[in-house]
Amino acid sequence: MKTTAFQHRFTVGLPDTDAAGVLFFGHLFRHAHDAFEAFMEQCGHPIPQLVAGGTWGLPIAHTKADYLRPMRHGERVTVEVTVRELGDRSFRLGYRFRGPGGTLRARAETVHVATAAGDGTSRSLPDSLRNALAGGPADRGD
Amino acid sequence: MKTTAFQHRFTVGLPDTDAAGVLFFGHLFRHAHDAFEAFMEQCGHPIPQLVAGGTWGLPIAHTKADYLRPMRHGERVTVEVTVRELGDRSFRLGYRFRGPGGTLRARAETVHVATAAGDGTSRSLPDSLRNALAGGPADRGD
Amino acid sequence: MKTTAFQHRFTVGLPDTDAAGVLFFGHLFRHAHDAFEAFMEQCGHPIPQLVAGGTWGLPIAHTKADYLRPMRHGERVTVEVTVRELGDRSFRLGYRFRGPGGTLRARAETVHVATAAGDGTSRSLPDSLRNALAGGPADRGD
Amino acid sequence: MKTTAFQHRFTVGLPDTDAAGVLFFGHLFRHAHDAFEAFMEQCGHPIPQLVAGGTWGLPIAHTKADYLRPMRHGERVTVEVTVRELGDRSFRLGYRFRGPGGTLRARAETVHVATAAGDGTSRSLPDSLRNALAGGPADRGD
Repeated sequence: MKTTAFQHRFTVGLPDTDAAGVLFFGHLFRHAHDAFEAFMEQCGHPIPQLVAGGTWGLPIAHTKADYLRPMRHGERVTVEVTVRELGDRSFRLGYRFRGPGGTLRARAETVHVATAAGDGTSRSLPDSLRNALAGGPADRGD
Repeated sequence: MKTTAFQHRFTVGLPDTDAAGVLFFGHLFRHAHDAFEAFMEQCGHPIPQLVAGGTWGLPIAHTKADYLRPMRHGERVTVEVTVRELGDRSFRLGYRFRGPGGTLRARAETVHVATAAGDGTSRSLPDSLRNALAGGPADRGD
Repeated sequence: MKTTAFQHRFTVGLPDTDAAGVLFFGHLFRHAHDAFEAFMEQCGHPIPQLVAGGTWGLPIAHTKADYLRPMRHGERVTVEVTVRELGDRSFRLGYRFRGPGGTLRARAETVHVATAAGDGTSRSLPDSLRNALAGGPADRGD
Repeated sequence: MKTTAFQHRFTVGLPDTDAAGVLFFGHLFRHAHDAFEAFMEQCGHPIPQLVAGGTWGLPIAHTKADYLRPMRHGERVTVEVTVRELGDRSFRLGYRFRGPGGTLRARAETVHVATAAGDGTSRSLPDSLRNALAGGPADRGD
């Protein structure tokens, strides 16, 4: 178990913003997913291979987000990814979005469920993935 | 108080899908917001005027979604919008996404907070908006 | 050959806009593609079946757009789709985006090439599709 | 005048792909704009300040793209930005998208027009921007 979150960085671009001048709330999830993909690659389970392989899946069953302070055009944002829950068939990741100086701007969660190819019923997480997540940055959430 | 949800329809287009062949979870919020904007227009408070006016705002402070069954490319989806909570300074809307035949595919929520222009502190909802929401389709959620 | 363009309508939503307060140029192509998918369904060749079928493809090889006047948040836009060129292996569609009152806001083009599954080499358009396009709304462009 | 293009990198994420398994053509422009914003910052004219300043604008009047080979989920892509034309009131940028190994996957162009605030009529480019672009990576296109 690590104590330091996995970090992913992005800059708020014009396509992220809306007419209110700040990051559109729905675009947060694209950046959360980019962070998730970078995290999974580091875990040794790159999502592109999983999606292309087609032998099992890892769809998102639940997501949520709290928007605390606006993220403005041009700001550098750091996404911190942590493992919040690790079950037999699913896991929960946490995301903290921090602006320059480390201020918390938003937090989010995604719950991923392992599914069998074909009928999409849930299945146990592969051992190698469970082990990788168990060794990842843990966090009880807030 | 109405008992029938406000309805908004869309078709899952290719830009909504991802390499897994189904609606990408983050794109759900664009469609939820389209439904929200259509609902607010019916309530007599069109979002474009609110955003352009700049005298007060209605940013989203919280959102969540449950994904129950995939939404596939080409499917006609109906979004049902209901009012789940109506406070002095904020309100909570519920969204149910139904596929052909009415099967529930996903549900979502958004919490909107009224803010003053300038410093972005919260303020009371304008009476006309509170009255419109109080007369809208209520729902305790699930 | 028809003389009236195929029509598709949308409303500029907050997720379509950017911090400059108008439709972000890149989002135009999502709406063009929605119009394309509605047009192809009317032609009897729905894109979802083509993509899921996997026996041939119709990728976009070229696109362009001219932005004449901004499209603002809340505006109702009509997209007019016409067939500009019909070859053995490809076709070119034109799109005109008109605001309320019919003013031209933007125009765009997409070139679609028929490809064989597997290696992605070009192939002749299926006769039924060529016939449907030949009977569609023609237009030499501008 | 430089001879080396400005470079911007991104990884094709799941939200970039569509059900056909490759980058959706319209999402190319979001990445082109990210590259443009990074380039403009290097030129000393960050777009966020320009948009927020509101004293003049730089809207996109024209864009086009050629898609040569698909960009697949997980691929590292390098965007090369060059200056293709520099006029009194507008400029044209070129973008080349290269996959691993340098293969050309797509190319694109954007034409930006300087506009006055308020009525949106065109105006001369500020000298400092013209000088920065004149000293940038030139390219006659292809």
